[in-house]
Amino acid sequence: MDLKNFIRNVPDFPKTGVQFKDLTTLWKDKLAFKESIDILYERYKNKDIHKIIGAESRGFIVASPLAYLLNSGFVPVRKKGKLPYKQVEAIYQLEYGTDALSIHADAVRQGENVLIVDDLLATGGTVKAMIELVKKLCGNLVEVAFLVELEFLKGRKGIDVPVFSIIKYTE
Amino acid sequence: MDLKNFIRNVPDFPKTGVQFKDLTTLWKDKLAFKESIDILYERYKNKDIHKIIGAESRGFIVASPLAYLLNSGFVPVRKKGKLPYKQVEAIYQLEYGTDALSIHADAVRQGENVLIVDDLLATGGTVKAMIELVKKLCGNLVEVAFLVELEFLKGRKGIDVPVFSIIKYTE
Repeated sequence: MDLKNFIRNVPDFPKTGVQFKDLTTLWKDKLAFKESIDILYERYKNKDIHKIIGAESRGFIVASPLAYLLNSGFVPVRKKGKLPYKQVEAIYQLEYGTDALSIHADAVRQGENVLIVDDLLATGGTVKAMIELVKKLCGNLVEVAFLVELEFLKGRKGIDVPVFSIIKYTE
Repeated sequence: MDLKNFIRNVPDFPKTGVQFKDLTTLWKDKLAFKESIDILYERYKNKDIHKIIGAESRGFIVASPLAYLLNSGFVPVRKKGKLPYKQVEAIYQLEYGTDALSIHADAVRQGENVLIVDDLLATGGTVKAMIELVKKLCGNLVEVAFLVELEFLKGRKGIDVPVFSIIKYTE
């Protein structure tokens, strides 16, 4: 199954010139959705992953079923102000200005094997902030995994842990 | 396993007087997380569910693994402006003012068996908007399911489809 066939290209969203990769058409197809998760499961099933970290909000869609299958705990990273308890933050760059991501301070124990999972790697701003959060909690970050990677945006550059992606766009 | 033991009560979040039910402590525990999803899977495994609808963003955490297990498609409902393609909207009431939820117009086909899944039933504003969206797409709504129900807020009142919840708070 070529999973790329299930992704809808939406021109000029969210603004002129952007070719938006709409993954909802993959997720609504039960076979494509299942295959995308199974590929990740096969890759990590023997890695003894204790915690899967997913980012608000599309990242949850990929990270949560993988956590279930791997028998790992699931940990959400959220935008500033959304989590209710003691947390640590990491700042990341937006096109104009900055924003912050948060994780609960007790979400990962020191030395636990952690996998970061997100739907799409673009410029990498979000995932770099997530990596910083895992490091602040002293987790052992095994890899970062994506359903889709926009290789032409060179988001891997500057990520100092292994990166895996299922579907790649070169342009 | 009493799943309630894994839920953290956070007083005065997001504002004074509210006893916030923090589910992240359940989700980060691999056994509690697995059991919560397994209960839903057992309930719906023979119901021939074609699409699971989850609401941004905590709802995705519960809905997505269930969609995987039931071999259903997963469909996100999102806040206005987040989905990239043709969509339908439903307005819902906030404490002050209103907001809108959206679903892609091609996310559910007429007559498909649909299950709505969310993390928590409070006053029911969000889920009523989700029910309206499924009806607009002419889906066959089987049930709405929650991990947690705050019974004292009487959110079930006015929901005209079957409601199921795993964990109930009476006060």
